[in-house]
Amino acid sequence: MIKSFLMLGQSNMAGRGFLHEVDPIYNEKIKMLRNGQWQMMTEPINYDRPVSGVSLAASFADAWSNAHPDEVIGLIPCAEGGSSLDDWQPEGILFQHALSEARFAMRSSQICGILWHQGESDSYRSLHETYYAKLTAIMSTLRHELNLEKIPLIIGGLGDFLGKTGFGQQATEYPQINEQLQRFAHEQQHCYFVTAAGLTANPDGIHIDAASQRKFGYRYFQAFSTMSHIMEPLAGEEQSLNVERAYSKNEQIYIHSLELASGKITYAQFEARMAKVMQP
Amino acid sequence: MIKSFLMLGQSNMAGRGFLHEVDPIYNEKIKMLRNGQWQMMTEPINYDRPVSGVSLAASFADAWSNAHPDEVIGLIPCAEGGSSLDDWQPEGILFQHALSEARFAMRSSQICGILWHQGESDSYRSLHETYYAKLTAIMSTLRHELNLEKIPLIIGGLGDFLGKTGFGQQATEYPQINEQLQRFAHEQQHCYFVTAAGLTANPDGIHIDAASQRKFGYRYFQAFSTMSHIMEPLAGEEQSLNVERAYSKNEQIYIHSLELASGKITYAQFEARMAKVMQP
Repeated sequence: MIKSFLMLGQSNMAGRGFLHEVDPIYNEKIKMLRNGQWQMMTEPINYDRPVSGVSLAASFADAWSNAHPDEVIGLIPCAEGGSSLDDWQPEGILFQHALSEARFAMRSSQICGILWHQGESDSYRSLHETYYAKLTAIMSTLRHELNLEKIPLIIGGLGDFLGKTGFGQQATEYPQINEQLQRFAHEQQHCYFVTAAGLTANPDGIHIDAASQRKFGYRYFQAFSTMSHIMEPLAGEEQSLNVERAYSKNEQIYIHSLELASGKITYAQFEARMAKVMQP
Repeated sequence: MIKSFLMLGQSNMAGRGFLHEVDPIYNEKIKMLRNGQWQMMTEPINYDRPVSGVSLAASFADAWSNAHPDEVIGLIPCAEGGSSLDDWQPEGILFQHALSEARFAMRSSQICGILWHQGESDSYRSLHETYYAKLTAIMSTLRHELNLEKIPLIIGGLGDFLGKTGFGQQATEYPQINEQLQRFAHEQQHCYFVTAAGLTANPDGIHIDAASQRKFGYRYFQAFSTMSHIMEPLAGEEQSLNVERAYSKNEQIYIHSLELASGKITYAQFEARMAKVMQP
């Protein structure tokens, strides 16, 4: 059965890294939920906005897949750009919709972890004072509703580029939110913190760039697999940028079908490429 | 309250027209459902696959918006590439997920119509023989479950480019499916047929191209607004390709924010453009 992971939070969980800045990840053992069903993953995974792009979930899944070569991983995209913690309160639509998507996923998968990244929209006006209590209510309700009391919850910190330029200018209280996220991860059971130290942003000053998202996903995977907090950048995290590998027959067919369907190659070129793929 | 429309069917409802082949539609009075909530529409609306693009829903919505300048329209994307009619049976996941999305939409909108386009995946192996009965079961269950007994259901025909080249080669029995779709629209109440005559395809031989999707949406709107079958291409349908208009302040802010968030402009350029927008 597919091992699945919930993606919850705001834009940096949805992903805004520019697709052209990193190599794509094609791996037939990584799926994403679409219309309640599993499809092979291609980024963007979490299409909440037309600017959705690279998120940490893809390199998380790729690292997980490399560590579990006989298994299939599924990603359940529920993140929503610009959402505050109040937008995620259990009675609200985002939370209820995430429950609904999770329940569709659970028909054909076992949810094994929760990936959370949120806080930019709470990094001002002293919202950090109520952050811990609100996050506790959200996560305990989520675990209870889905009967996921003991699976790991991985929560990432906010980037040090915040509070300075562009759309990130207003998020001046991100250090206080980071304190609350760390406190939450240290005090709550089955929860692990992942630092955003060293990650860099797009020109908008708020969104983690593509290469940094790859590294962030690698950190999330290390937190998940070692069940520990990741408080410093990891020595091996650059390897998340190197996704080159020999593609399986299914992956090659998928890639050539994308090329044709997106108009990059003609049908004659597609046929020629497929003939090569199908060679015994 | 937002007037909303369900998008159901397979890839040509989801949309595979190339985005660069037509002018984008930016209209703050057209929304699309994301995570159970309404966002301003940008194509692709129905992100079932990474190759999702222009669908008929955008020009349908734009024509509707022009005819109802004081209202807001919302699109509920539920179409799934490659889905057969069996995949849409009421007990199946696609149908159940569409019901779930519709119910989220109904918290903040009134569903006023159903847009359906499907049949390529049933255009072989004599599946047309059971198409009518299956479609009847799907639509009567859908109307009953959502209490939408009397709203218009608009169903489009399959393109004459099918059965010839590329991915469309196998769909040789599309004329028989078209017969069943027409029969359904003529025999069932509150259902209107829209011809695909004259529409053209992408190089893959199966997906309606972007310009044709614009025209198709215009035909869907004419069927909806006149409550009649559209059996021939329409004299005015070329106007669906001309989407040029003066953008509102909100639309300009939205466009410049997209430009920044997607890396097309720097933050300094964004600020300069925003200063112009904000000029009194």
